[in-house]
Amino acid sequence: MLYNYFEPMDNYDPSTNEYDVIFVGGGAGGRFGSTYFKAMGGKQLTIEKDGHLGGKCPKNACVIHHYLFDIAVELDLARILDDKKWYPKLPTGKGKVEIVPMIEDYLKGRDEAYDVMYYQSKSQLNLEFILNREAEIVDKNTVIVDGKTFKTKNLVIGSGSRAAIPNVPGKDLSGVYSYANFLELDYEPKNVVVVGASKTGMPWASFFNAVGCNTTMIDMNPFLTAFNLDDEIKEYIIDGMKLRDMNLMENTALSSINGNGHVESVTVERKDGSKETIKADMVFVGTGCIPNSEIAAPLGVEIGGGNEIVVDSHMKTSVPGIYAIGDVTGGPMEMWKARKAGMVASKNILGMEADLDITSFPDFLHTTYEITWVGMTEKEAREKLEKVFVIRMPIKDYPGHCPIPLAERTMLLSHIHPGLNGMQKAIYDGETRMLLGAQHVGYGAKDSFQYLDHLIRKGITIDEIANMNELFLNPTHYIQLSRLRAGMKSLVDLT
Amino acid sequence: MLYNYFEPMDNYDPSTNEYDVIFVGGGAGGRFGSTYFKAMGGKQLTIEKDGHLGGKCPKNACVIHHYLFDIAVELDLARILDDKKWYPKLPTGKGKVEIVPMIEDYLKGRDEAYDVMYYQSKSQLNLEFILNREAEIVDKNTVIVDGKTFKTKNLVIGSGSRAAIPNVPGKDLSGVYSYANFLELDYEPKNVVVVGASKTGMPWASFFNAVGCNTTMIDMNPFLTAFNLDDEIKEYIIDGMKLRDMNLMENTALSSINGNGHVESVTVERKDGSKETIKADMVFVGTGCIPNSEIAAPLGVEIGGGNEIVVDSHMKTSVPGIYAIGDVTGGPMEMWKARKAGMVASKNILGMEADLDITSFPDFLHTTYEITWVGMTEKEAREKLEKVFVIRMPIKDYPGHCPIPLAERTMLLSHIHPGLNGMQKAIYDGETRMLLGAQHVGYGAKDSFQYLDHLIRKGITIDEIANMNELFLNPTHYIQLSRLRAGMKSLVDLT
Repeated sequence: MLYNYFEPMDNYDPSTNEYDVIFVGGGAGGRFGSTYFKAMGGKQLTIEKDGHLGGKCPKNACVIHHYLFDIAVELDLARILDDKKWYPKLPTGKGKVEIVPMIEDYLKGRDEAYDVMYYQSKSQLNLEFILNREAEIVDKNTVIVDGKTFKTKNLVIGSGSRAAIPNVPGKDLSGVYSYANFLELDYEPKNVVVVGASKTGMPWASFFNAVGCNTTMIDMNPFLTAFNLDDEIKEYIIDGMKLRDMNLMENTALSSINGNGHVESVTVERKDGSKETIKADMVFVGTGCIPNSEIAAPLGVEIGGGNEIVVDSHMKTSVPGIYAIGDVTGGPMEMWKARKAGMVASKNILGMEADLDITSFPDFLHTTYEITWVGMTEKEAREKLEKVFVIRMPIKDYPGHCPIPLAERTMLLSHIHPGLNGMQKAIYDGETRMLLGAQHVGYGAKDSFQYLDHLIRKGITIDEIANMNELFLNPTHYIQLSRLRAGMKSLVDLT
Repeated sequence: MLYNYFEPMDNYDPSTNEYDVIFVGGGAGGRFGSTYFKAMGGKQLTIEKDGHLGGKCPKNACVIHHYLFDIAVELDLARILDDKKWYPKLPTGKGKVEIVPMIEDYLKGRDEAYDVMYYQSKSQLNLEFILNREAEIVDKNTVIVDGKTFKTKNLVIGSGSRAAIPNVPGKDLSGVYSYANFLELDYEPKNVVVVGASKTGMPWASFFNAVGCNTTMIDMNPFLTAFNLDDEIKEYIIDGMKLRDMNLMENTALSSINGNGHVESVTVERKDGSKETIKADMVFVGTGCIPNSEIAAPLGVEIGGGNEIVVDSHMKTSVPGIYAIGDVTGGPMEMWKARKAGMVASKNILGMEADLDITSFPDFLHTTYEITWVGMTEKEAREKLEKVFVIRMPIKDYPGHCPIPLAERTMLLSHIHPGLNGMQKAIYDGETRMLLGAQHVGYGAKDSFQYLDHLIRKGITIDEIANMNELFLNPTHYIQLSRLRAGMKSLVDLT
């Protein structure tokens, strides 16, 4: 660790207290917004209540999520290969792999991430910031920190969000966790109930299961309802979790968490009214986040029904001169949205009109798979368009086992365990030959979906994709499968 | 296994023997070329001497390469975590993990790949083909198979390539392997010398080393000379191999392989003339491939100095009506080139002019890392252009350890072992703001480099990239790092 996060570590010019903009919150939106503003030549100050920049991502969200995903995938492979090749015999049932030391490892690494964020922000990006203290917002042009007054022409609120904990009996018992306090875990749970099959709930449940906990995941709705995936992809994902012996309960609500001091069980209620009590020594809640809009409410900005600050596509609130960015503006609470919102707010403040477009975007979800998608599903395309062309792997109705090498990482799996090969498809407009959407379950495709999203917006056609240079063996088979059909004037599905 | 590969498994209409085109060779080029030709409405026949379609890729090249890479990466992780977390204590020095059972596993999986290729070609793509027999080319319009004469208007030669074995004493000893006979390995080598730090030599050497063999890699030239990477990236890759205790000898030629029946040692000679004899019970040769042009020579087509069939950008040979595609036309012997060459030949035969452009393409290399690159290096850009802008991670001259999460797979590594985080950079034209090239050492970026290659050709700018929607944590940091600078009118390096 290079820096001490528990002392004020300010980086601003004390000879002035006049700014073009003050960002309240130095998370993803505040840091990227400040940087863009500074890069354009404006004068900014960023005030962050925590002792580090970057917000919840390095603190307790994205990074720990990915770390646990990596562990889950490695443990999944180890369980598949249990006691074969060089893999050890893993404890199951009675024993399990320990979680607490994993958290200890993580916390050591987190300090390094904080350091990098600090160094980059200060030494490379030359941002002005105040860390580890609350901003007291007097009015839209006045912020006080530690008794010192800062004046600003514009205010950008990027105060983030917090975990939403369902208001049920027992929610305050010891043993109830969300992403926000998971790093405080100090015992080894045996029976875990995960509430909410969300982008947080799914990977955490997969992690607990891979570690060797008896894991139950419940959701009020059918699983994966909120995700823009075709049914066959959803089935593949859910089947994968069943194959790994997870206890899955969809259409099931949390009624109460029971225990005496610490969680002992969870009572759930199905749509048909039937109830069940499940033994549990840990409950992990992944039921979304609530925007931290309270800091802005006294300013008179409009607050929406989900506690979010209401903004337009310029990130303007209902009060001129006050902008809001990131999670505090509501869903989707995604990294790209927070960062781009910071950029868009900065451009608009400096008179360069810019819009944040959230109508379509690439997305991902982790189980022990990496699941990525972008654009239209096949179902949506067939409803809207006359002629739709689809490519898909594995081959439907194939009479044998159809191994598809979703390299990297999967070769070892696909040669050993039939059914662990992933699934993918792409959807084209059969008339215009333009790519409409794609879905992928496997590994190694997430990075490319960022660029596919861009290409879809630009109207890329099957003929252009067929003419790309694939890096075989590639996780997405879109280039080569498209090439197999692109010679056709009238495209015939390759599924 | 669905099909029996050792019987003729023909799929053609016996009522005619007249074709628009006959493809000699059903590998990557022949299969994709045939498919494109058929899709455009032409009549083709594909004749393949092996009992399966797809060529060397599933037989003994790309697929086994990726399978061994996956094993090497998993073993690398297991060695880093040796006896920690749930990882076993791995044998080193005296003992090691066994290779032969890995090959046995692979061969079982290979049959499934053959099956899929057969099923897709026959049932989905409706190709006409003859497998498991040699084509006897009488003239450019006449091919005989098993005494049966087939007439054709055009001939496409896609006869592939074979391993080039250096002509040194001992080259025929037992224990000398290339990719072509590696699957015949029937003992457990302890001391391996890999000849040629090539795209084949590097991953195979990394595999042997990860397995626990004492591994030496020699190359006549400085390592990585042939790869379009900046020096700092090359150093990172080589340092990674040294960190893993490989014995690396660049500027070193193979003089002789020594032994009595079986390999016992290898004698090498350095540029300064000094010699050294290295103990070895296995030699793996990765010194490239020779085109199989012999089949076409009697037709009078021009053969180049590397034994390749000389073709123009339409895949036309020096004899009208005869085309050649894939490895038999010389380097680069890449999958995309073979497949696209098949498509280009088919278009030209059917009168639809098309060119194969091989001037720039994305590329990759495996060690225990996945290394990907595309376009100009920083060095090349700075030589050619007035103003160059570069982004890079980790941060140069950073005073601490700069962990960069090249998700997926790397989070577990980067939190445990400093220095195993990868490296990446992107190079822009500082004037036009267009992306010129990118390089990445890590995992999970290969797929996206296919699309980056296309975007670079299209002239994508930093401003467009800064406006993309990243899927954080993403292996390539290009979107977010670009956004951190895109606000600047005059771009300042972020390295």
